[in-house]
Amino acid sequence: MKFSIERGALLKAVAQAQSVVERRNTIPILANVLIEAEGSDVHFRATDLDIEVVDRAPAQVERAGATTVSAVTLHEIVRKLPDGALVTLTDDSAAGRLSVAAGRSHFNLATLPKEDFPVMASSEYSSNFSAPAPVLRRLFDKSKFAISTEETRYYLNGVYMHVAESEGGRVLRCVATDGHRLARIDADLPDGASDMPGVIVPRKTVGEMRKLLDDDDTQIAVSVSETKVRFATPDITLTSKVIDGTFPDYTRVIPQGNTRRLEVDASEFAHAVDRVATVSSERSRAVKLTLEEDKLTLSVNAPDSGAAEEELAVAYGDERLEIGFNAKYLLEIASQVDRENAVFMFNSSGDPTLMREGNDTSAVYVVMPMRV
Amino acid sequence: MKFSIERGALLKAVAQAQSVVERRNTIPILANVLIEAEGSDVHFRATDLDIEVVDRAPAQVERAGATTVSAVTLHEIVRKLPDGALVTLTDDSAAGRLSVAAGRSHFNLATLPKEDFPVMASSEYSSNFSAPAPVLRRLFDKSKFAISTEETRYYLNGVYMHVAESEGGRVLRCVATDGHRLARIDADLPDGASDMPGVIVPRKTVGEMRKLLDDDDTQIAVSVSETKVRFATPDITLTSKVIDGTFPDYTRVIPQGNTRRLEVDASEFAHAVDRVATVSSERSRAVKLTLEEDKLTLSVNAPDSGAAEEELAVAYGDERLEIGFNAKYLLEIASQVDRENAVFMFNSSGDPTLMREGNDTSAVYVVMPMRV
Repeated sequence: MKFSIERGALLKAVAQAQSVVERRNTIPILANVLIEAEGSDVHFRATDLDIEVVDRAPAQVERAGATTVSAVTLHEIVRKLPDGALVTLTDDSAAGRLSVAAGRSHFNLATLPKEDFPVMASSEYSSNFSAPAPVLRRLFDKSKFAISTEETRYYLNGVYMHVAESEGGRVLRCVATDGHRLARIDADLPDGASDMPGVIVPRKTVGEMRKLLDDDDTQIAVSVSETKVRFATPDITLTSKVIDGTFPDYTRVIPQGNTRRLEVDASEFAHAVDRVATVSSERSRAVKLTLEEDKLTLSVNAPDSGAAEEELAVAYGDERLEIGFNAKYLLEIASQVDRENAVFMFNSSGDPTLMREGNDTSAVYVVMPMRV
Repeated sequence: MKFSIERGALLKAVAQAQSVVERRNTIPILANVLIEAEGSDVHFRATDLDIEVVDRAPAQVERAGATTVSAVTLHEIVRKLPDGALVTLTDDSAAGRLSVAAGRSHFNLATLPKEDFPVMASSEYSSNFSAPAPVLRRLFDKSKFAISTEETRYYLNGVYMHVAESEGGRVLRCVATDGHRLARIDADLPDGASDMPGVIVPRKTVGEMRKLLDDDDTQIAVSVSETKVRFATPDITLTSKVIDGTFPDYTRVIPQGNTRRLEVDASEFAHAVDRVATVSSERSRAVKLTLEEDKLTLSVNAPDSGAAEEELAVAYGDERLEIGFNAKYLLEIASQVDRENAVFMFNSSGDPTLMREGNDTSAVYVVMPMRV
């Protein structure tokens, strides 16, 4: 194998690969990236056995072939090469070495045989559709904060992507929850997605996939089966196992009968929550909301360190209500609001509270109260 | 005590105080800042018993007085208040609470009696002089990287500031070393400094003091005694104990007879060292320099992961030499060079090597070689 490639293209491809690779590996080849050169393309493939990413980059291929080399080391080297450099990679399979040369820099890296690299088995996908990058970005960005980190509830360690029935018809929906809060985000159902099986996309996959979504003009090809999901741009293909479990029936958690409506500027609200939470002890972080006519009082009482109180002008017309929340959860959902005022729908101080952006029901958040 | 103060002025004063306060305290009052209001000024005083910082800020003082309150909590609150807010602090000594009010935000913080706050004993300083901020900045910025972190050699855990004899006459000199590398930086001797006793300024003091030096136009008042050093701007006074120990005779470490002169672009050199070091194992990080006529070859050989080599065009006219160094040490000294080429003076592969900027001897670095 021998090819030359522009440093920028190489860096982009290797960056994605080394990010999928797990830092602590007991299986040496999993630290490596599989480099395959053929025609006018080079493919860079990396895996942690659950996720596989393949990056394609154009190159001048002089001699086709394949080898594997440490993804982290190759990435570090390429990152440190000067911008615009032409990098030549030559595999000496007899010596078990890959030579990386650019200008007056020359590296010789240990390789492992390409035959040992675990290529993910290809699958039949029962559903294939395409969605604009900004649509997927919104679905996952607004839901991922609620993913559970509790390993015992492994079926909550991801975003549940599925087709659902909403008031306006069928939608592509992402839901995440950790039992304390929940996010439910809807988008128009793309053509070809209606038969899609519901899948739980693992947290790491959500993070890696997010890197494919930065460009507003990209169409993402999505393929879904019962066991796998694939997201692809023209240059990058990310394949991931999905979580083998049943996502709980979240619909029962979303309160339908909450009638006490509070409307507040989301940014003012978030800043006020952040300020009053300063005095609370790290662990509990409980903030009390006192709702009165057109007035919201946020307060924290921490016997050791002190007390804090802040008033906000809001729109509220119902009877007086006191309710407590974890400050972190309030901050997280308030920071999802980007266009309009935050609208909270309360019931009693013991019931889950619903939040949305204005009257838009395509992004809905639920947060459990806590005793204060 | 009651006073009102602009949020920006309060933030600046409290930021410096909370930075001196140690995060983990067994003595509760050491977590607090002493706030003293009188006349048209408020003083904020914080200490870790080794360093004391006093910030003065203008305020509208309604009622003189003093109290102490958690430096970290007060800083967090002030940081989160909106820019331009007017903050009113009112001490209720009967309740043991300090009220902090700004707009619709209101905080009540636990206080501790001002009498319990350990104010550092005032000292007689045997030497007082003044130096422009950029001069002190250069002295400490270029030397502090070489401060030892080894606690057993406590007398190396700081920068040795003293008066020394150089070729051009007496100078104000800062030296730091950890036994593997050494930095020796000289500046013109300020008026009034000639009788200054040599003092070892502790690492933390160097860091805190550095914040006083950002403004090019500030004159810093420096006071030195055998046991303490003080740096002051018109608004901030930093007093610190010095390290009670004898700095070793560093002059014997600085090679006088090195004659093999290598001149190289410092930035090119640093980048090349960084690149070749990529393949080396984390622990040893040894880089071999091979000097030949007008050519420098940097190489690393790490049996496990691979090898790297890079050539640089340099000015070198002596006989061939091979010498090894710790990559981190080479990078650190090369990054001190900002105006001219780096000049290395070598002797043999077992001897300390000297580096300076061009022919300027006011900043000199020594680095010990390692076997490769």
